[in-house]
Amino acid sequence: MDNLFINPGKEQWNLLTKRPAFNYAALEDIVMPILLDVKENGDQAVKKYITKFDHASLDILLVSPQEVEDGTALVDEKLKAAIQLAKNNIQLFHESQQQDIHKITTSPGVLCWRKSVGIQNVGLYIPGGSAPLFSTLLMLGIPARIAGCSNIIVCTPSNAEGKINPVILYTAQLLGITNIFKVGGVQAIAAMAYGTQSIPAVSKIFGPGNQYVTAGKQLVNREGVAIDMPAGPSELAVYADDTCIPAFVAADLLSQAEHGADSQVVLVATTSNIIDEVKAQIRLQLQSLPRKDTAIAALINSRFIVMEDIDTAFDFLNEYAAEHLIIASDNAQLLSDKVINAGSVFLGNYSPESAGDYASGTNHTLPTNGYAKAYSGVSVDSFVKKITFQELSEQGLKNIGPSVELMAEAEGLQAHKNAVTLRINSLNP
Amino acid sequence: MDNLFINPGKEQWNLLTKRPAFNYAALEDIVMPILLDVKENGDQAVKKYITKFDHASLDILLVSPQEVEDGTALVDEKLKAAIQLAKNNIQLFHESQQQDIHKITTSPGVLCWRKSVGIQNVGLYIPGGSAPLFSTLLMLGIPARIAGCSNIIVCTPSNAEGKINPVILYTAQLLGITNIFKVGGVQAIAAMAYGTQSIPAVSKIFGPGNQYVTAGKQLVNREGVAIDMPAGPSELAVYADDTCIPAFVAADLLSQAEHGADSQVVLVATTSNIIDEVKAQIRLQLQSLPRKDTAIAALINSRFIVMEDIDTAFDFLNEYAAEHLIIASDNAQLLSDKVINAGSVFLGNYSPESAGDYASGTNHTLPTNGYAKAYSGVSVDSFVKKITFQELSEQGLKNIGPSVELMAEAEGLQAHKNAVTLRINSLNP
Repeated sequence: MDNLFINPGKEQWNLLTKRPAFNYAALEDIVMPILLDVKENGDQAVKKYITKFDHASLDILLVSPQEVEDGTALVDEKLKAAIQLAKNNIQLFHESQQQDIHKITTSPGVLCWRKSVGIQNVGLYIPGGSAPLFSTLLMLGIPARIAGCSNIIVCTPSNAEGKINPVILYTAQLLGITNIFKVGGVQAIAAMAYGTQSIPAVSKIFGPGNQYVTAGKQLVNREGVAIDMPAGPSELAVYADDTCIPAFVAADLLSQAEHGADSQVVLVATTSNIIDEVKAQIRLQLQSLPRKDTAIAALINSRFIVMEDIDTAFDFLNEYAAEHLIIASDNAQLLSDKVINAGSVFLGNYSPESAGDYASGTNHTLPTNGYAKAYSGVSVDSFVKKITFQELSEQGLKNIGPSVELMAEAEGLQAHKNAVTLRINSLNP
Repeated sequence: MDNLFINPGKEQWNLLTKRPAFNYAALEDIVMPILLDVKENGDQAVKKYITKFDHASLDILLVSPQEVEDGTALVDEKLKAAIQLAKNNIQLFHESQQQDIHKITTSPGVLCWRKSVGIQNVGLYIPGGSAPLFSTLLMLGIPARIAGCSNIIVCTPSNAEGKINPVILYTAQLLGITNIFKVGGVQAIAAMAYGTQSIPAVSKIFGPGNQYVTAGKQLVNREGVAIDMPAGPSELAVYADDTCIPAFVAADLLSQAEHGADSQVVLVATTSNIIDEVKAQIRLQLQSLPRKDTAIAALINSRFIVMEDIDTAFDFLNEYAAEHLIIASDNAQLLSDKVINAGSVFLGNYSPESAGDYASGTNHTLPTNGYAKAYSGVSVDSFVKKITFQELSEQGLKNIGPSVELMAEAEGLQAHKNAVTLRINSLNP
């Protein structure tokens, strides 16, 4: 982990902001046949892949109310309370994203407005595997409900015994989501994109997944199914100055590093002293981590950068466009004004990334891989369409009609002009 | 044009809502080599394709201030005034889409908020060819400026003499956009995606185009460049009841039909009488249209549907999910509540689609091909990222920290827990 760079010049930034290239095209040969098979053969194909990949033999894909009840009973009461607190905070923050209708009179008699309408059919993919990501179910299910999506389905893989993790079942139940299907992987993406006998097709698919799931989402997206955002490995950048607490910074970097060997970790500090102290803390804290090997692997790809000049530091961080950005400084409020590109920003020494990952209220589904330059994280916006409406009175049409006629004519679209002319003539007989 | 359907059963809806399938994959063989060539050879490749496709020989791609001045002088004063009126209305409506920052205290000491920040580098593609779409420049340039995008570039093809349509130059000047490049087609998309010596790379590409441009946008999107939305042929659905004015409905359908032979036109009426009257009006109005042949070709693919039951009619229209939906009825206000899927909705007999295409204030860049089920039209939202921020006080972390610890542990992420534990321990020595 000796990727130390002192005041790197701009000619080095391209390299320093680079993410590991991943060739999804290479996965198409594996993913495409599964998509096609499910498209053609529905549940039968889905069950075949469940047997093949999850080693489970399932007759019925839909989780039964009894299974939800049984699972819920297994969850520790303290954990339930924690999830409820998280739910309340996430709900409060996401409810504040709802938009009222504002009718705007743009010209006299011309009324325009926008209305947010929930996407009717949405699919939430919740990975199983090494960790049961019930937090992701909170992050997707809560805005989906606030948006008013009428049909919310969840796909998540079962274990070999055909059981879904109880905490996921509890969380679904807490959110009032009852359509939970025991299917993961590419077969889940295919089922949600095309629909099967038991799994309804959706218009938009949300949720993280491994490289096959990501490739599957990209492929169905090309066919017109919307997806939340393009995905890449998770990332954290920390800006730290003399007012940071190195042990905290180290803990934050490690929390990102434990996600996966491909996790991206970047520390930008104003002095090399800070970096030395953080590194010492990393070595110390690393010892007791269960996912130590993963964290070490990720740290090999990490970057420790000294930027003595604050503005240059933030120029670099904006160029990097991190999924998560922690500003470890007593001066975080002021510094945060310099942020142009980031998914989510954590201010000060007591705002660890894990707060936002679980319970502060912000969403943890965020743009990675530099996509924060053009993409936002998941919000209520992600679950609605904003439909525009307009209503012109006769006078309204008289007011703007002549302009429309001139512009349509100048674009060579005579029938566009006629649609106005005919109406105006009928009003001025 | 005798595609008449009387109260079609739901088993027919799939067919009736179907758009012409278009195989973009087949275009990849043509488009991909151009993308790669521009990526590798920059301006040199761009100029080669300009010579090949636009038959222009250009030394400099950037439009000069003198050219803008000369072009602006050529535009008729009345047309300038019309464009100014349109600009004012579009600006008023889009300014209303700006969102203030609301700081939400989700738990005591836990403050979360969202801030909209303009995407720094955006590219607007404005087609040339048969019609100079200066209206599209208004629809993309105005929200880009409101969003605060710092670098806005426009690519639009020149004619064989290397000249850009004067009205496009005037509109750009009106919006304060000075980086206009004389390049169209796939080479323009490639230049904006990868950057060349003279054209800067952007993070998001907006704008309509022919099938090659659309395929080019999809291909660079796969590589991580954001695009406004997937594209398809333009569409109009009209709902008409006894209170409609058939001549107006006919004019609206024709205004859509003249766009292109692949334009989609659907009329859903409550009686077959209305359809007969509208068809008679279409025959009458068609005679005098300069783009008559195009309109006739589009009308061959059109659908005239009688739905006697209002709710069934809107169920069908929601299933169709039209780019433009006109509710030609005195009862439009009430009926508009039934709209779940549409790009933009026009209420009553005096709100023709062409009003929204040019000057009412709403955006005309809208989801086609049924994408309105999951996608919104272009708005200020399209030009910003909404970055989330959070700041926890020491007390805030104490309040939610224990929940974060429990949840992180349940997901098997010990380092996530540690980032909280370490901080809480430091506060409770």
